[in-house]
Amino acid sequence: MTQPSPPQSWRERLYIIIFHADTPAGKRFDEILLLAILASLVVVMLDSVNSIHQHYALPLAGLEWGFTALFAAEYLLRLYCSPKPLRYAFSFYGVVDLLAVLPALLALVYTGAQYLMIVRVLRMLRVFRILKLTPYLSQANFLLVALRGSQQKITVFLLTVSTLVIVFGTLMYVVEGPHHGFTSIPTSIYWAVVTLTTVGFGDITPKTPLGQGLATLIMITGYSIIAVPTGIFTAELASAMRGGSESLQHACPTCGKAEHEASAGFCSRCGHPLFPKL
Amino acid sequence: MTQPSPPQSWRERLYIIIFHADTPAGKRFDEILLLAILASLVVVMLDSVNSIHQHYALPLAGLEWGFTALFAAEYLLRLYCSPKPLRYAFSFYGVVDLLAVLPALLALVYTGAQYLMIVRVLRMLRVFRILKLTPYLSQANFLLVALRGSQQKITVFLLTVSTLVIVFGTLMYVVEGPHHGFTSIPTSIYWAVVTLTTVGFGDITPKTPLGQGLATLIMITGYSIIAVPTGIFTAELASAMRGGSESLQHACPTCGKAEHEASAGFCSRCGHPLFPKL
Amino acid sequence: MTQPSPPQSWRERLYIIIFHADTPAGKRFDEILLLAILASLVVVMLDSVNSIHQHYALPLAGLEWGFTALFAAEYLLRLYCSPKPLRYAFSFYGVVDLLAVLPALLALVYTGAQYLMIVRVLRMLRVFRILKLTPYLSQANFLLVALRGSQQKITVFLLTVSTLVIVFGTLMYVVEGPHHGFTSIPTSIYWAVVTLTTVGFGDITPKTPLGQGLATLIMITGYSIIAVPTGIFTAELASAMRGGSESLQHACPTCGKAEHEASAGFCSRCGHPLFPKL
Amino acid sequence: MTQPSPPQSWRERLYIIIFHADTPAGKRFDEILLLAILASLVVVMLDSVNSIHQHYALPLAGLEWGFTALFAAEYLLRLYCSPKPLRYAFSFYGVVDLLAVLPALLALVYTGAQYLMIVRVLRMLRVFRILKLTPYLSQANFLLVALRGSQQKITVFLLTVSTLVIVFGTLMYVVEGPHHGFTSIPTSIYWAVVTLTTVGFGDITPKTPLGQGLATLIMITGYSIIAVPTGIFTAELASAMRGGSESLQHACPTCGKAEHEASAGFCSRCGHPLFPKL
Repeated sequence: MTQPSPPQSWRERLYIIIFHADTPAGKRFDEILLLAILASLVVVMLDSVNSIHQHYALPLAGLEWGFTALFAAEYLLRLYCSPKPLRYAFSFYGVVDLLAVLPALLALVYTGAQYLMIVRVLRMLRVFRILKLTPYLSQANFLLVALRGSQQKITVFLLTVSTLVIVFGTLMYVVEGPHHGFTSIPTSIYWAVVTLTTVGFGDITPKTPLGQGLATLIMITGYSIIAVPTGIFTAELASAMRGGSESLQHACPTCGKAEHEASAGFCSRCGHPLFPKL
Repeated sequence: MTQPSPPQSWRERLYIIIFHADTPAGKRFDEILLLAILASLVVVMLDSVNSIHQHYALPLAGLEWGFTALFAAEYLLRLYCSPKPLRYAFSFYGVVDLLAVLPALLALVYTGAQYLMIVRVLRMLRVFRILKLTPYLSQANFLLVALRGSQQKITVFLLTVSTLVIVFGTLMYVVEGPHHGFTSIPTSIYWAVVTLTTVGFGDITPKTPLGQGLATLIMITGYSIIAVPTGIFTAELASAMRGGSESLQHACPTCGKAEHEASAGFCSRCGHPLFPKL
Repeated sequence: MTQPSPPQSWRERLYIIIFHADTPAGKRFDEILLLAILASLVVVMLDSVNSIHQHYALPLAGLEWGFTALFAAEYLLRLYCSPKPLRYAFSFYGVVDLLAVLPALLALVYTGAQYLMIVRVLRMLRVFRILKLTPYLSQANFLLVALRGSQQKITVFLLTVSTLVIVFGTLMYVVEGPHHGFTSIPTSIYWAVVTLTTVGFGDITPKTPLGQGLATLIMITGYSIIAVPTGIFTAELASAMRGGSESLQHACPTCGKAEHEASAGFCSRCGHPLFPKL
Repeated sequence: MTQPSPPQSWRERLYIIIFHADTPAGKRFDEILLLAILASLVVVMLDSVNSIHQHYALPLAGLEWGFTALFAAEYLLRLYCSPKPLRYAFSFYGVVDLLAVLPALLALVYTGAQYLMIVRVLRMLRVFRILKLTPYLSQANFLLVALRGSQQKITVFLLTVSTLVIVFGTLMYVVEGPHHGFTSIPTSIYWAVVTLTTVGFGDITPKTPLGQGLATLIMITGYSIIAVPTGIFTAELASAMRGGSESLQHACPTCGKAEHEASAGFCSRCGHPLFPKL
């Protein structure tokens, strides 16, 4: 910014506004886009409410088409100003941007428009692209590091939970049977998940004493093992928050003390410098 | 307290009783006020029970008016004895004190009194003002420090949860449809929140195998990611609780670095011994 | 045990068997008593099942009387052999022992026997007296220390939760009203507790969009703030497990290092002895 | 692998393929077996769905028999090639392997085949045998160490929860009574478990104000004490994860004390310096 930047073409300036969020214009563009996405989501939601649809079908459809045109124009502009248009088109966000526009266009030819509504939800993911540059992202990064660190333990936990719900679900199917709502093994496994996760809809409930006893076992299991993912994640997060520093360290050459503070210049045990002085 | 305090006017003494809770008279005043607020809340609650209202409408209305008169008198006294009445009147507690009195007065003119009942709940916030000076508040402060420290991470978490319930809610609306209770996208998102938070009312439940499979996914997600806010808060609270002790360590005499490892014998920044050698 | 014990009277031996659980005879007595209490609880439970009561009312009543006679005899023996009978009679366990016998005797005079059944549950507390000497108790002690340490924080948390459910419950009463199941403010507060604690019975559910939006807020609040008691207890327990040692410690007289390992004889920073050698 | 292995008999090679998963052939065998077990589980599940059973009863039964024949052949092969067949036959996996085959054979003689379906679920446990050699197992080991370390505390916790649900269940039976759904003490205890674990089916709900107040108490208790198993497990897991690094520290040269504080310069037991002074 201290050096005079060379004159930019219109296309280059557009590229910076649309793809970079670190200039005032780029930030404003992303904020307006975020608002448009949110507004289009609200319109889709309102359109799904029956009483609103009956009275305001036309204006809502108009708004829908407006947003579709806006996002289509944005997609074409992105293709036009991007230095590598093909690379953008096949990137994750490129595909999402295209999918956000396509359903409305397809609805012109085929009348099954209401089933394509689901793709519009993907527009929501743009929120994360816009948030990319806020200070919140470094915090999200902390959470991701902790999640990645606990990935293997979480997999073991989910495998154990899966085995538990299959075993308990089958047992409940045998004990309670179809006339008490446990109509099949998959339904019973669904019930076991509802119970183990302490959701407890109550659409299917055990009626026999043996089934209620078994359900008691499942509920106390679910109530207790919720400690496992929590413990895993807490331990990983605490280690990630202390972390960073530790992977940079080498042992003290004099006394061999292995772990030091992140900014340590001297060993806190023997006072020896931790690296050759300049 | 060791020096003789200058003679006080009636207004000054009233000010200390009403606004300060660290004198015996001030403490007693706050305790009586707390009891009056609790009693007035109980009266409002009992009045809302139909069977009680039919039999005791008159005495309850009398008590209501008594409490309203009491709180009105208290509000006027606060205005009178405060050295800066305007500042009090526009402070948070000043507004709450006024709002606790107004509804009953307004009910004389308009008959929509039952809708104003809601404002009376704000009286409850006085409990915190009265508790201000108890030893419990330092503990509440610990919790607040931990909550403030984890604010950004919690925001990221809530944004992720919001995206999840919108995506899952829309998917369930498409999969299950209006004839299975998922009448609109907002209702489906409400259901997704009910399921993800493991509340599980059971007023709306999936009926199709695909919907039950998707619900299984939502439930296991909700059951697992409860670990995230817990992990965040636990890590922050543990760090807040250690906080105090670390700040007690004496600074390095050479470079002034304040915090050191528990058993550090040398400053890790300048290598100076941290205590006189024998 | 190395010294010859003086000859004991029958009453003294009985006292050791009944009140002390560290001799073989005393341990066996407590184990048999535990089994008798459990058996009497099972009998009370079975008697409450309608189908069982209709067929086995007589033998169950017989067993009930047998257990009552047994516990009455035990109570009289305890009174007889205790060196300070009055002190036992007015201790917690003395009162519980009396209450475990009284209902059955009272049922002879008054026919409201089924309402006194509730007192029998208190016999269950004897289980803890019997477990007193198992190695598990030191672990229970850890939990109690952690709970006591977090008592103040838990109180602040429970006060906040209470305020939240009162505010949210009243709001829901105003928003949903009696014709949607929210019949009174106490009922609405009960519903708010059911929702905030993620229990979610589903006997009362919001019907209006505003009510569902408010319920969403309560559910996400409840889902998030469960992190608070968990974080409090985890931090306290981790500190209690490191703990024990820390309260025994005094600072190093040479370098002032405050915290040492539990069994430290020398300061790990300067090597100075931590206490005068014998 | 660097030395030429002596020529093996067919039986020895088969033993390595079937029992050892560290050779390519053995790994492939285990992977195919895992797929076969999963497929047989899916077939059992699909067969339990009424609409599928009516249309595809015959092909599903055929598949069932195919899998049974496959597992029977595998069991016989294991017996044949194992160096100690009896030891395998009476090991845990040997019994599970036999039980996975027997039900289908027994169904030929007795027609109660549908009740034996439950044993087939045990095949699922083979999944863990196959996963035995993946890197995930070391993570599972971490979880097991933490669970074993917290076993005693968890037992105390479960005993307390059991006492709570018995006391609360009996109280609710007395307060609400059979005409509000609390038909017996065991049913009321089942309801107390449903409520305390925050599952909340809603098939039984309190109707009286006193019952709702008591339910509020149970719910807040359950909501709060979930912190206990979580705290226990988190503290143990964090200690298990730190564990490894501490054991790497070198022992004191004078007294042999193995573990020291991270930055200890002197042994805290004998005061000897832990590293050669400069």
